[in-house]
Amino acid sequence: MTTDGRLQGIFTPNMVPLNDQGNIDESELRRYVDWLIDRGVHGLYPNGSTGEFTRFTPDERRRIVEIMADQTAGRVPILAGAAEANVRETIAACEYYHGLGVRAVAIVAPFYYKLSPDNVYAYFKEIARHTPVDVTLYNIPMFASPIDVPTIQRLSEECERIVAIKDSSGDVAQMIRMIEAVRPNRPDFSFLTGWDAVLVPMLLIGCDGGTNASSGVVPEMTRELYDLTIGGQIDAARRIQAQLIELFDPTLYAADFPEGFRTAVSLRGFAMGTGRQPLSDKHRTILADLQKTLGAWLDRQGLGGESPTPKGVAGWDAGQVSAIVEGVLAELRSRGVTAAQR
Amino acid sequence: MTTDGRLQGIFTPNMVPLNDQGNIDESELRRYVDWLIDRGVHGLYPNGSTGEFTRFTPDERRRIVEIMADQTAGRVPILAGAAEANVRETIAACEYYHGLGVRAVAIVAPFYYKLSPDNVYAYFKEIARHTPVDVTLYNIPMFASPIDVPTIQRLSEECERIVAIKDSSGDVAQMIRMIEAVRPNRPDFSFLTGWDAVLVPMLLIGCDGGTNASSGVVPEMTRELYDLTIGGQIDAARRIQAQLIELFDPTLYAADFPEGFRTAVSLRGFAMGTGRQPLSDKHRTILADLQKTLGAWLDRQGLGGESPTPKGVAGWDAGQVSAIVEGVLAELRSRGVTAAQR
Amino acid sequence: MTTDGRLQGIFTPNMVPLNDQGNIDESELRRYVDWLIDRGVHGLYPNGSTGEFTRFTPDERRRIVEIMADQTAGRVPILAGAAEANVRETIAACEYYHGLGVRAVAIVAPFYYKLSPDNVYAYFKEIARHTPVDVTLYNIPMFASPIDVPTIQRLSEECERIVAIKDSSGDVAQMIRMIEAVRPNRPDFSFLTGWDAVLVPMLLIGCDGGTNASSGVVPEMTRELYDLTIGGQIDAARRIQAQLIELFDPTLYAADFPEGFRTAVSLRGFAMGTGRQPLSDKHRTILADLQKTLGAWLDRQGLGGESPTPKGVAGWDAGQVSAIVEGVLAELRSRGVTAAQR
Amino acid sequence: MTTDGRLQGIFTPNMVPLNDQGNIDESELRRYVDWLIDRGVHGLYPNGSTGEFTRFTPDERRRIVEIMADQTAGRVPILAGAAEANVRETIAACEYYHGLGVRAVAIVAPFYYKLSPDNVYAYFKEIARHTPVDVTLYNIPMFASPIDVPTIQRLSEECERIVAIKDSSGDVAQMIRMIEAVRPNRPDFSFLTGWDAVLVPMLLIGCDGGTNASSGVVPEMTRELYDLTIGGQIDAARRIQAQLIELFDPTLYAADFPEGFRTAVSLRGFAMGTGRQPLSDKHRTILADLQKTLGAWLDRQGLGGESPTPKGVAGWDAGQVSAIVEGVLAELRSRGVTAAQR
Repeated sequence: MTTDGRLQGIFTPNMVPLNDQGNIDESELRRYVDWLIDRGVHGLYPNGSTGEFTRFTPDERRRIVEIMADQTAGRVPILAGAAEANVRETIAACEYYHGLGVRAVAIVAPFYYKLSPDNVYAYFKEIARHTPVDVTLYNIPMFASPIDVPTIQRLSEECERIVAIKDSSGDVAQMIRMIEAVRPNRPDFSFLTGWDAVLVPMLLIGCDGGTNASSGVVPEMTRELYDLTIGGQIDAARRIQAQLIELFDPTLYAADFPEGFRTAVSLRGFAMGTGRQPLSDKHRTILADLQKTLGAWLDRQGLGGESPTPKGVAGWDAGQVSAIVEGVLAELRSRGVTAAQR
Repeated sequence: MTTDGRLQGIFTPNMVPLNDQGNIDESELRRYVDWLIDRGVHGLYPNGSTGEFTRFTPDERRRIVEIMADQTAGRVPILAGAAEANVRETIAACEYYHGLGVRAVAIVAPFYYKLSPDNVYAYFKEIARHTPVDVTLYNIPMFASPIDVPTIQRLSEECERIVAIKDSSGDVAQMIRMIEAVRPNRPDFSFLTGWDAVLVPMLLIGCDGGTNASSGVVPEMTRELYDLTIGGQIDAARRIQAQLIELFDPTLYAADFPEGFRTAVSLRGFAMGTGRQPLSDKHRTILADLQKTLGAWLDRQGLGGESPTPKGVAGWDAGQVSAIVEGVLAELRSRGVTAAQR
Repeated sequence: MTTDGRLQGIFTPNMVPLNDQGNIDESELRRYVDWLIDRGVHGLYPNGSTGEFTRFTPDERRRIVEIMADQTAGRVPILAGAAEANVRETIAACEYYHGLGVRAVAIVAPFYYKLSPDNVYAYFKEIARHTPVDVTLYNIPMFASPIDVPTIQRLSEECERIVAIKDSSGDVAQMIRMIEAVRPNRPDFSFLTGWDAVLVPMLLIGCDGGTNASSGVVPEMTRELYDLTIGGQIDAARRIQAQLIELFDPTLYAADFPEGFRTAVSLRGFAMGTGRQPLSDKHRTILADLQKTLGAWLDRQGLGGESPTPKGVAGWDAGQVSAIVEGVLAELRSRGVTAAQR
Repeated sequence: MTTDGRLQGIFTPNMVPLNDQGNIDESELRRYVDWLIDRGVHGLYPNGSTGEFTRFTPDERRRIVEIMADQTAGRVPILAGAAEANVRETIAACEYYHGLGVRAVAIVAPFYYKLSPDNVYAYFKEIARHTPVDVTLYNIPMFASPIDVPTIQRLSEECERIVAIKDSSGDVAQMIRMIEAVRPNRPDFSFLTGWDAVLVPMLLIGCDGGTNASSGVVPEMTRELYDLTIGGQIDAARRIQAQLIELFDPTLYAADFPEGFRTAVSLRGFAMGTGRQPLSDKHRTILADLQKTLGAWLDRQGLGGESPTPKGVAGWDAGQVSAIVEGVLAELRSRGVTAAQR
């Protein structure tokens, strides 16, 4: 995918590692970004639902994108979640992320209050009028006001800045309806599915890619699934799809979302820390059980065995590494070397 | 499909034409059966939800299958809806339909009361113990107690007589889960989707066919969609899928189900009569509008222009034909000729 | 309550005892009817949801009302559930129950299919045009198409034969809306709640009574609750309401409805038999546990200790009694003595 | 109600007037606070759902409580909505509001993500461990994770700092269950309903009061309803309840919540400004129609006729007045006169 082209492929809605104080663990986040890119994800998607955007402060959300944009350094495009408390704040976030060089922002429909379709339209229309960066509509009806097909069609026709929809409903029929309604007038518009369990059929009926939590756990597999499906090897793709559901279902349903994904990413060797939502004893037990289940599943895929405490490599602990990295970056910045130049 | 093989292809959940007295219009039903078979449907499915099984009496439900079995005369398999008031009555219906030579029965999960999965299991298990004919589980969570994946898996492993599931949820991920759970142990088990809007993706992820109301309106198209998808011509199949959604959506959503399908079938030249559920003035207007919409759509498909009152052919009206047929049948019966012998 | 007056008080939606063959246990049903009347219920309501109307055949439903009308012999009014497969069958049932002398029928909104409000209106309007007996609308949105307030208002204004609504939503605000919409024009119209957990507040905001499954278990308590509330002793009524919820919640929620009520009624000394819905092992265990819970609760209320197998009293078993009763009735009929005359 | 006693009576979840720039209109907010107190509300509830807390920034939420605490000056207790992005931020808000002298905070269950009951428990438990101010649980299942009865019971037993629940479900049975579960062990615990349509029955079954959007529109009526109900004049209370539903229903349902309440408060003479959620043309029309409906309703109650543009009185515009008020307050503060002294 080129920087200016259509959004395509698998974008990882990454979780954010937290340190012992519950703050963003910058060095681990940078390490995770590299790892994801190395394993073939097409893009990154900070501040999504998997990324727990609502549990960070506005400043932290900006810091997350800042770190990731810096670390990515243009290797893959970034789709930055930019929803804030209201339109004014959201537009300010769009401007900020634009300044960081993200490919596009993703904005979830208003949540808490359930809005009618006409006001969902008005909301995105107002944002589209002012954003300096491309916007992806984010439809996740289980958490936020739904964005229905007529609304998507209307916004796509009226707003050049709106370039894609990320749909996490998992409703394949609805995706066909969206594509039929939008593509004739907007061949550049991109359709991404956030529902990992139907990634293959979604790609087969015309989606351009996905924003899939599973890709933060097994980026190798989602990439392979994508390549096989696009390459017409449907039987092989279906087999990976079935395996992916074996990962997706317990990770999603066993514990309150997205705790299961924190556990799963940890199993790939990242120190994700303790989430900000306090967990009950019952949930700690659930997650301990899930860890075993997922560990066994990863072993079967030949993806197990990664050190759960990889930060101490070479005798240095993560804090030390992070301090050093920060020092180096500060030094580079002081010498006028910006992210874009590196 | 052979009589004993796996259920495959498109089974039409046909509506039942009613005469001026609101009774089964036998001659028109026979004509409709012939028309459907001639246009390529792989099987027929009387007493489904589209067929308004709840609005007929137990005797009428038997009569419908009787007429259709007689008229089909083995040309295509029949999947007969057999749900009655309770297990005893349902088993009696299974026995009756078995005597008529149907390929299998379809039994919807208990409705009105919402049962838990363990009792849904107990219900089908009890039926499977006694039925002389193969059983298709019928999952339609918008109307009846859901049949979840563990229940389907358990029933498929314990009950040889249960040979298929018809799922009308439209949930592609759920279908993948079902197939993964059942197929390894029961390669003969058949998976049919009742959700026309995802027929292509369902076939692509491994379904054996569908029971689709649209096939009662445009059997030519659903057959072509099926053949193209099975034949690997996915792009062409997707185009038909998109057209089919243009039919399916207004027919399903504009009016209370299944009234829109009655209107649609009428447009193919069948005198469907007035349904048994009284309609409001508002609904009559909705259906008149729908008739225009669907008529225009059929014209665009080259399927319009069929006479809406075809029953007067050859100078005989339908009532006369029906009376003659009834007379002949009565005569045959009086001579000891049963349906099974003809 | 007089036979012709407004429906008022507590109507028991009684379950039907079944014998070892799963058929209606007539003598036990008669005994149960007497027991309920003796303990103060204001009326009886056969063929309701608690009464499992969908699990009986049309003939059985008629037989149930027949037995109960005969046994009641005018002591309390009967509200007979009369919903059948379609309007024609439902009207025939109305006529039949009218002939048996019931005070009114109760007709649930169409179920299985979910109808829009305008067609719910059309359905009841058509019935109201033809019924010879007063009709109670039955709103139970968890199982059937909802009957909304404008529909109730319109039907109440246009149809003299529609005299009441039984609402099982438990939504107190909705009940206030109904009363406000209907009572000004139809002071004779009656409002009954089917949600036992809010019986006191419903009566306080203006309901005329209830059709409450709990009254089939503890008719003494629901009667007392009613009398206290009507009598303005709110604090005392609230205490009984709280106790009733202790009965209602586990009986309703622990097992698939209405199995818990079968267990509960058995604890008052009636041989209810095994229900027609097959139960899983899990459910049998649930019901065994529930039996203990409810038994202890009844003991605390001073209502425990009734024999669970009371049918053998006086050395006669129930089948013998039933046979004798049947014989006497047959003899009476042969002499031209009809139920109405007795 | 004394400052330290049980929460009782009607707390207004007030909206926040916005100026032409979309910022908090401080002077109008102060005027509104006075008006509400003058008309008899028992307390104020900033940063509730009606108060659009999610659409303000964390700093704005603090500013709103600051203004209101200052203006209230101890005349009535304040219940301050304190939910922030995560537990740490929420506790910081509790500390801040404690410093402002609020009576208690109200904290909605986690939203966006739907949490299981055990984690809802863990969330409030963690907050209760650290808050310096009393906490009201806020249950609003249509917008946030539900707080079920066992969770409320457990929290009430373990956490002294948790002193009340505000329940906006409108489920009267559920409220009875809560009261039965909590009151025996915590007689000081307070139960408030946020569902205006059942205020009378909720008070009758034992609630201590309500947090009702209607009280921001017609504080006179909600106060009268409260006084009549508490005073045992149930028939008179019911009449007001019915009238209140005539206000509540269109204000709540005609437009996306809480836009209708902005329109309604404007009709009482406050310049509420334009909300932060952009509105569609359709919604503007809806609100214009609603304005007429509510205006006529207010006239019928004898509450109409208040100037819709009251800010320009005496030739001064609101900005000027606000500036003067601010000046005076600053001067007072500089002289050591604090809110508590005034």
